Amino acid sequence: MNQQFVAVNYISCTVDYRSRFEELFTSRAHAIDNMPGFINMHVLKPAAEGEDYLIVSYWETEDAFKGWTSSEAFRIGHRRGFEDLAKARQEGNPAPMSSSFKTYQVISE
Amino acid sequence: MNQQFVAVNYISCTVDYRSRFEELFTSRAHAIDNMPGFINMHVLKPAAEGEDYLIVSYWETEDAFKGWTSSEAFRIGHRRGFEDLAKARQEGNPAPMSSSFKTYQVISE
Repeated sequence: MNQQFVAVNYISCTVDYRSRFEELFTSRAHAIDNMPGFINMHVLKPAAEGEDYLIVSYWETEDAFKGWTSSEAFRIGHRRGFEDLAKARQEGNPAPMSSSFKTYQVISE
Repeated sequence: MNQQFVAVNYISCTVDYRSRFEELFTSRAHAIDNMPGFINMHVLKPAAEGEDYLIVSYWETEDAFKGWTSSEAFRIGHRRGFEDLAKARQEGNPAPMSSSFKTYQVISE
């Protein structure tokens, strides 16, 4: 079996920002889809109130994932979200979302 | 898009139990594979020491997932892990692993 590399971005959203966050992904630019080594991704909405959203992306290698995070396509793909964060900062408001990446290897499927 | 249902089982393992836990999955019984509504699953090993393993399963509906957790196949598929837990309990040892389920809907892919 090809040992796939998986990145999970755990996203904490304020209650007010959730519909905007979901809109950003349901209308996403698909900038990631043509990256070398990209396999697929899923955005997971938690059933329980207050839990993190999960953005799960599957890659052929860790280097392919790193290539994406340092790419121009990554910057373009996150433009609207980054603008929302910058706007909150400029207005002295708390960040509407925060994220933290953890990475994994697929050991069984 | 079909709104897939996703269950993530977050598994915390003691250091000593990790190789056994991985072995249980790399030699898994595939009891789940023929369950109605099952799409696929991935067992994710964390890159960072001490983080949880993730067992991510994709289902056509929440009912399909619930059908699995209450099935005879579920009991058979988890037999070896349940035996390890029972043995630790009988010997007065701490549980070698603990798990907690969270569930999600796929909102973008």
